[in-house]
Amino acid sequence: MKIGYLGPRGTFTEEAILNNLKIEENDLVGFPTVYDVIRAVEKNEVEKGIVPIENSIEGPINATLDMLAFETEISIEKEIIAHIKHNLIGKLKTGFQDVEKVISHPQATAQCRNYLRENFPNVPVEAANSTAEAVIKASKSDGKAVAIGTKLAAEIYGLVILAKGIEDFEDNLTRFVILGREQPKKTGFDKTSIVCFIYEDRPGSLLQILQEFSFRYINLTKIASRPTKKGLGDYCFFIDMEGHIEDEVISSAIKCLECKIRKVKILGSYPRGK
Amino acid sequence: MKIGYLGPRGTFTEEAILNNLKIEENDLVGFPTVYDVIRAVEKNEVEKGIVPIENSIEGPINATLDMLAFETEISIEKEIIAHIKHNLIGKLKTGFQDVEKVISHPQATAQCRNYLRENFPNVPVEAANSTAEAVIKASKSDGKAVAIGTKLAAEIYGLVILAKGIEDFEDNLTRFVILGREQPKKTGFDKTSIVCFIYEDRPGSLLQILQEFSFRYINLTKIASRPTKKGLGDYCFFIDMEGHIEDEVISSAIKCLECKIRKVKILGSYPRGK
Repeated sequence: MKIGYLGPRGTFTEEAILNNLKIEENDLVGFPTVYDVIRAVEKNEVEKGIVPIENSIEGPINATLDMLAFETEISIEKEIIAHIKHNLIGKLKTGFQDVEKVISHPQATAQCRNYLRENFPNVPVEAANSTAEAVIKASKSDGKAVAIGTKLAAEIYGLVILAKGIEDFEDNLTRFVILGREQPKKTGFDKTSIVCFIYEDRPGSLLQILQEFSFRYINLTKIASRPTKKGLGDYCFFIDMEGHIEDEVISSAIKCLECKIRKVKILGSYPRGK
Repeated sequence: MKIGYLGPRGTFTEEAILNNLKIEENDLVGFPTVYDVIRAVEKNEVEKGIVPIENSIEGPINATLDMLAFETEISIEKEIIAHIKHNLIGKLKTGFQDVEKVISHPQATAQCRNYLRENFPNVPVEAANSTAEAVIKASKSDGKAVAIGTKLAAEIYGLVILAKGIEDFEDNLTRFVILGREQPKKTGFDKTSIVCFIYEDRPGSLLQILQEFSFRYINLTKIASRPTKKGLGDYCFFIDMEGHIEDEVISSAIKCLECKIRKVKILGSYPRGK
């Protein structure tokens, strides 16, 4: 069974997979974007796809939410919640005073902003498309460039960790989702994810949506809004709730929502991560 | 009067300023990050700061929301809403078939995803810290690298526009805010921005917040949630509404909210942009 993931080798996604799932490295196929992972599942090039969906510091991963809302019918089968530990990675002999460039993905850079300001106040920061790409670039440099990335990437690309746990906030968690075509059975410890598309009269709609859940004592674990790409202020809402679509309260809440708002898209009912 | 903005020269922020405000180029001071712009206002190095806060395609600009919510007491004095036109920029003699690299900020790349997939399917995309930096890189290249950026940047850095309006969605608008220490007077066509910090029992809190506005017929123009950086699922809400803090309905809604939720921070009451 082949599994697609957000690559290249050494990303936080790969690290989360190897630490949390029983999957062999040889079964993993890296793709450069979330879009490519999902298209590969649709074309049966891989059986499942694994991508990040939410980070506790930076918030939702827009590319993933947009694909799930607008561009695919594959759904969420499982979630993984993993601690994100950022590391400063470089060549063995690189001292802090030698560093002339820090390379990373802008989101990783943002999560280490205070650390960089204290330790490398005047060092330019170069952007990369992923933390793994940043580590590859540092590995090809003259030793004066360092990267922010995973322990796994440091190992794969033959570099060392110069400083570990450099993220500004301790509780840096990321939720990853496994995407595919199966509909997992109810376990009793489940989560259901939906997207609510609303009519233009938006503030009233969100109130109505929340009332449906509140009325049934359904616990919501996330609400995120995203533009529908039709102009400023036109939003849809991503809602995660405790429970399975086979639970009567969940299915009735969704049925009532479907009468009230423009569209409800179910992204999946799946076992909750820990 | 010096004005700080998200630089370097040629960014969408600078383009929006020059097209919408009566400000001389010589009075503008570019800073590399939103953080630096805001700190410069606080230290009186510049009188005002101008940064993006929301894009109709990509959603909120996290760096700006986080600074306003958690790290500064300066407030919003005015908003500018500008159309974003992405351009493919390169050297005069560069043909599409010559292109070996596309450079841009990941957010601009995301907004031109379909265009790039159709026209440059196998060309690697290099990340830059800003669209202006991407154009600078293309200007220093051998002519085989192109950038996605503003018309203004093409002019400043001596390149030409190879294709214009390459964004995937037509209504690509960005809201910019002018930050400073003044409290603009009521004009009758105003907007008020607040952040609501809630207790852990979040879903119920959002319902209560929305009810305060719904009850008073206050029209909300935006709701955005952001993590409070204390763990997955712990959020605060950014709410924009029509009206001025001096309007009785607005001030009473905020007073009632202050009794119900953990904290309300007012980001400003200011004239609405068009």
